[in-house]
Amino acid sequence: MTAQAAEALAAEALAAETLAAETPAAEALAGAWLAALAGRIATRDAAGAAALFGNESFWRDLLPFTWSIATFEGPGAIQAMLEATLPRAEAAGFRLEPGTARTDGAVTEAWFRFETGALRARGHLRLRDGRCWTLMTAALALKGHEERAGRTREAGVAHGAVRGRESWREGREREARALGTTEQPHVLVVGGGQGGIVLGARLRRLGVPALIVDAHPRPGDAWRRRYRTLCLHDPVWAIHLPYLPFPEHWPVFTPKDRMADWLEAYAGLMELDIWGSTRAEAARYDEGRGEWEVTLRREGRPVTLRPKQLVLATGMSGAPQVPAYEGAETFRGVQLHSSAYRGGEGFAGRRCVVIGSNNSAHDIAAELWECGADVTMVQRSSTLVVRAETQLRHFGYKLYSEDALEAGIGTEEADFIAASRPYAILPAMHRALYDRIRQEDAGFYRRLEAAGFMLDFGEDGSGLSMKYLRRGSGYYIDVGASDLVIRGDVKLRSRVEVSRILPEGVALSDGTVLPADLVVYATGFEPMERWIAGLVSEEAARRVGPVWGLGSGTRRDPGPWAGELRNMWKPTRQEGLWLQGGNLQQIRFTSRLLAIQLKARMEGIPTPVYDPAVFGADAVGADAAEALP
Amino acid sequence: MTAQAAEALAAEALAAETLAAETPAAEALAGAWLAALAGRIATRDAAGAAALFGNESFWRDLLPFTWSIATFEGPGAIQAMLEATLPRAEAAGFRLEPGTARTDGAVTEAWFRFETGALRARGHLRLRDGRCWTLMTAALALKGHEERAGRTREAGVAHGAVRGRESWREGREREARALGTTEQPHVLVVGGGQGGIVLGARLRRLGVPALIVDAHPRPGDAWRRRYRTLCLHDPVWAIHLPYLPFPEHWPVFTPKDRMADWLEAYAGLMELDIWGSTRAEAARYDEGRGEWEVTLRREGRPVTLRPKQLVLATGMSGAPQVPAYEGAETFRGVQLHSSAYRGGEGFAGRRCVVIGSNNSAHDIAAELWECGADVTMVQRSSTLVVRAETQLRHFGYKLYSEDALEAGIGTEEADFIAASRPYAILPAMHRALYDRIRQEDAGFYRRLEAAGFMLDFGEDGSGLSMKYLRRGSGYYIDVGASDLVIRGDVKLRSRVEVSRILPEGVALSDGTVLPADLVVYATGFEPMERWIAGLVSEEAARRVGPVWGLGSGTRRDPGPWAGELRNMWKPTRQEGLWLQGGNLQQIRFTSRLLAIQLKARMEGIPTPVYDPAVFGADAVGADAAEALP
Repeated sequence: MTAQAAEALAAEALAAETLAAETPAAEALAGAWLAALAGRIATRDAAGAAALFGNESFWRDLLPFTWSIATFEGPGAIQAMLEATLPRAEAAGFRLEPGTARTDGAVTEAWFRFETGALRARGHLRLRDGRCWTLMTAALALKGHEERAGRTREAGVAHGAVRGRESWREGREREARALGTTEQPHVLVVGGGQGGIVLGARLRRLGVPALIVDAHPRPGDAWRRRYRTLCLHDPVWAIHLPYLPFPEHWPVFTPKDRMADWLEAYAGLMELDIWGSTRAEAARYDEGRGEWEVTLRREGRPVTLRPKQLVLATGMSGAPQVPAYEGAETFRGVQLHSSAYRGGEGFAGRRCVVIGSNNSAHDIAAELWECGADVTMVQRSSTLVVRAETQLRHFGYKLYSEDALEAGIGTEEADFIAASRPYAILPAMHRALYDRIRQEDAGFYRRLEAAGFMLDFGEDGSGLSMKYLRRGSGYYIDVGASDLVIRGDVKLRSRVEVSRILPEGVALSDGTVLPADLVVYATGFEPMERWIAGLVSEEAARRVGPVWGLGSGTRRDPGPWAGELRNMWKPTRQEGLWLQGGNLQQIRFTSRLLAIQLKARMEGIPTPVYDPAVFGADAVGADAAEALP
Repeated sequence: MTAQAAEALAAEALAAETLAAETPAAEALAGAWLAALAGRIATRDAAGAAALFGNESFWRDLLPFTWSIATFEGPGAIQAMLEATLPRAEAAGFRLEPGTARTDGAVTEAWFRFETGALRARGHLRLRDGRCWTLMTAALALKGHEERAGRTREAGVAHGAVRGRESWREGREREARALGTTEQPHVLVVGGGQGGIVLGARLRRLGVPALIVDAHPRPGDAWRRRYRTLCLHDPVWAIHLPYLPFPEHWPVFTPKDRMADWLEAYAGLMELDIWGSTRAEAARYDEGRGEWEVTLRREGRPVTLRPKQLVLATGMSGAPQVPAYEGAETFRGVQLHSSAYRGGEGFAGRRCVVIGSNNSAHDIAAELWECGADVTMVQRSSTLVVRAETQLRHFGYKLYSEDALEAGIGTEEADFIAASRPYAILPAMHRALYDRIRQEDAGFYRRLEAAGFMLDFGEDGSGLSMKYLRRGSGYYIDVGASDLVIRGDVKLRSRVEVSRILPEGVALSDGTVLPADLVVYATGFEPMERWIAGLVSEEAARRVGPVWGLGSGTRRDPGPWAGELRNMWKPTRQEGLWLQGGNLQQIRFTSRLLAIQLKARMEGIPTPVYDPAVFGADAVGADAAEALP
């Protein structure tokens, strides 16, 4: 992308967020373009359709054409996709959503609806110089299997007297008893954190028998067991769960126990089937039967299940990663990974060393300081820091805010707007914003560097969100710890490595020793794909390949460019295996797509997958539905 | 009211429900009238203001002028009210809500906003022939004590490192521990059913320390212990709780256990302080200290609390009322009041007699029949029956429906529209509707009478809602039992009384005997005011007088006409005593008014009460705030 294009894009993105008014001219332009696309799709003219796209262009498809989550860049890739998918997609009925067309002069955008043979769908287009710059097509619902809501909601009671009728409670209890014992779940979701719960709610609404298992006793425990003062770093407008939004007095930043209680109540009210205190130990895919054999340990007792589909919702991070420092076994104090840290009680006046400098390291260092400990942070490599208030004021949250609500942009609409932007165009947009942030908070950053802190803003200056998408780490959203570092209340040792652990403390590469009663390894987690290796096999993990990341070619996100988050919420090279994860904003939106894919397979609806980034040169994945008997 | 006026009213009410479009002429007319009212209020010209009202007119005030819930009928009563209240109300800032003025030619209506010295308020006017026919003025919020929501919501976290900070969980636990032990609640709510819970949520949002006590162990238990197949008779659109509406897939008629679970989750998520397994045994008002002394028994142990305000939210009905039938002590089978009935299990093939013919009697008869019992219903007096589907299609629920939502009328707006109609005009409106219902369901009613069922539609033909408002009983919303009666599956004995109970069954006044293994007394409940007698004193109950009912002069609702539900949600003649109750639609709306009254008293804001129907000729109740030190 040219620098000018990037500039234009950033401007456009901001314009979109500031909600320019619609115009009749924009509606005419968008309508004409959409009619042209519809015409060429109707005649299966892939080349003609691709010719409607500019040289720099993106088609982001979220199921309707590809039965995958894939972005195609440029007319060539778009033509190839259409040639492969048009014969079966039966896309038709394209029409603009009234009143959605807008223009800023250079870019014209609009929302539209259409259908395929199997799906009701929605789309978004951006035109530049008469041709398409970005197109997004997204599944909304499986035709004939729409969620019941509003006018189609259930009656709840059959009026009239019926002998032997079952009450709601009795029905729920019977279902819960049967699932996993006398009846196999169609979907087994491993992990009952927010990802598993949100997906479970979607599946429940679609009538897909799903069982969620989690090692913790109660829903929400993953939050409950974090250290006591933790609050979510994303604001309330971004973290609503589907179907049941937080009430309007909910605080901006949700305390972790309050989130836990919400998740637990939500799971109950949404009638989810969750087995707590249950670990998934092994899973084997039986090609012949087209189902999994999953070995669980439920409250200590072994259980074997045979679901058709297996979803790993075990979180974006794999197992805790602790560097193998020499001498660690000789340490006389307490040492633990950040994930095992519960709080600083009992460490008042004691010497604590936190190794690492990302979110967990900062949060734990601050919490220890609040408890009166003597804290030193060891920074081994540079970190992106952005102040929470700045982030809230600036970025992303323009879509998720009271301003957006006042402008009529609810949570779901905001999700669609966010989804309309292909990943490829995000870095330029974020770079422009981070340039501003660095100016505005220049004094803060200067003080932080003066304290010895090694700062970065992503190697291309594109900031926090891109780091999150590319590697899921490398940043701290400052909710107060940076001031402790600046003031020296939390001591900082940077530009050093840990050379070894001594019985009395931590030896650094500059020859100094930090005496310590506590060492916290805030050193991150194994990548997500390790869950596959652990639960299924090393071979399956290899076959699926890296999970998460875009293939941006930046540090910890090696190429090739994938255009989407790798293997997330879509078919993988391991049949019947799905990855669910991400932050609440992501899972709220993607869980619908994942649930539709699972429901389609349960109903035997053909789901021919076209996704070159996953399935290589021939670009066609297994059609699970056709593989079924 | 003349017959023509009643007709016009019914037409108008329907027109309002069918949402006529606004017009500039209506806006001009309404604006001019409102400006005239505002001008006369500004100069405290009570006579001039009253002259703006028609001879047949109603001013329904929900706090702003009267600090009570009171309706004034005709210019004379309106002038008297204004003379008493204008000197202190400081009402000002009257302005139409843009786009709300509408007319059907005869009646013009509009919404408006205004303020008093203490309150933000909203109003609704209906004009006829240039003068006011109905006016409603309602408090929205106490100025300076508005609920925090949206832009004013709490941060949830104080960014920055703070030593010794308390987590949300710790704060909640500390609060819960302190309330009722080291700290007195400002408000004690006796009864933790839906009325207590909804009020508790409102008080919590206003920062009023409130403790709810309930005899049941868990919130929702009042629903849980009802018989197993019970579903709510009101549809989902009418029963939303404030702040946290049901999700859009919630069934039309909520099963009782599902409602129970919702209430329990709601109480937790809204952070209410509830003591379960706690009975209120006695309450004494200490005039000198201006507080109550309430004796509780909490899980068997006595506790004494000293709240400033005491709210009875023990339900619209008092204790179960069982007629003192001679010989009851000799009965060899099982006999119980309807409220103690848990389900028909174990009664298959056995002879069951249900005495009574209202909702509970029908529900229990049908449930027993579903369980295979041999059931006879004894009808002692006529009953209003309306089919649930008919009711859903016709009445009230035009405001609470998918149609209303599609027209932009959310639950809160529907509540205000309902509140804009003075009780005095409802019978005419309902009569017109019941005339239609009786025509449409003529066949059904004919069959029911052919089975011997004694039908009525209220003694003035005004139907179910008026019976509910006047006496809270005397009807059945048919969800299926009437067909059992028609078919003879549930046997009916009507036009008889119970003459005595025999060891083997029930002897009727016609000399026959119904052999019985089970007798259910679906014979209603003592009136609500009996709670006051039981908890406070007979003298206090006498002083407060009848609770509920309008004073319509119809059966079980003797006059004088009160214009409002007597003693509900407003000051009573017992200082510091409040009555909370009603169905979910009522308590959703009135709980805001009650919470504002309690909060105002807590803050020491003057609340001079003017309510002749409660406080008699001088019409002025105690100003609790001024009585406080």
